[in-house]
Amino acid sequence: MPQIVYYFEDIEPGAVLELGSCTVSEEEIIAFARQFDPQPFHIDKAAAERSIFGGLIASGWHTCSLTMRLLVDGFLCRAASLGSPGVEQIRWLRPVRPDDTLSARIVVLETRPSQSKPDRGAVRMRTEVTNQHGDLVMTMESIGLIGRRP
Amino acid sequence: MPQIVYYFEDIEPGAVLELGSCTVSEEEIIAFARQFDPQPFHIDKAAAERSIFGGLIASGWHTCSLTMRLLVDGFLCRAASLGSPGVEQIRWLRPVRPDDTLSARIVVLETRPSQSKPDRGAVRMRTEVTNQHGDLVMTMESIGLIGRRP
Repeated sequence: MPQIVYYFEDIEPGAVLELGSCTVSEEEIIAFARQFDPQPFHIDKAAAERSIFGGLIASGWHTCSLTMRLLVDGFLCRAASLGSPGVEQIRWLRPVRPDDTLSARIVVLETRPSQSKPDRGAVRMRTEVTNQHGDLVMTMESIGLIGRRP
Repeated sequence: MPQIVYYFEDIEPGAVLELGSCTVSEEEIIAFARQFDPQPFHIDKAAAERSIFGGLIASGWHTCSLTMRLLVDGFLCRAASLGSPGVEQIRWLRPVRPDDTLSARIVVLETRPSQSKPDRGAVRMRTEVTNQHGDLVMTMESIGLIGRRP
């Protein structure tokens, strides 16, 4: 169990946190898509080459899930995380392709104590995901609920 | 290869499409979360019971991914799908728990021909996901790009 170092009080608007990176293989892209998003350009190399994408690309939900893993390892595992009510916006800006290395960072946009539940607050954050060329592949604006210091 | 029956021209604002349902097991919830969202309330039954959720719950990204599978099987596999630029909003309204059966439907909100690319148009849709008790567990507003009839 990692130690909790981020309670709601410790999170300030404007704070930036680098979340590290991960590399996604062709096998992982196909395996995820076979299970959850079996469109030809996600699971079939030949069909993907003939598609508007010119080759296999990861499901946007795979990119979200890989980014979530970076968010958990780089932030939430040390935060008093109480889940999330939702996401305000996701933009899939460029395709994620086999062997791409994705790096993520979060920028805290706003913190707001809960009106109804005094033990927690909401943190609105922007997540930016870039590939190994420095191109932005995804942005997301989401809300996390974080416990207050006991 | 299923036959394409939905081109951009075939999709009308106000149309409703039932996407079918799927059941998610405890093993699947834990396996997804171990890979992508290893927070205690998603992967550790005992910790989840002590958490504010009172038991194991699925990652919101797992719910999104399961819903995407219903969307592909129930709609996109027969549509001239060209991917998606993004999502406008996701709301995780209630926890998804082991052995829940999720049913999804989409409502077409708006269709808009692309200004820059005459071969396609954007379809803005609302997705609603309910559990076996009829409770809404997730809503989403997303955009799909669909090819025009050749």
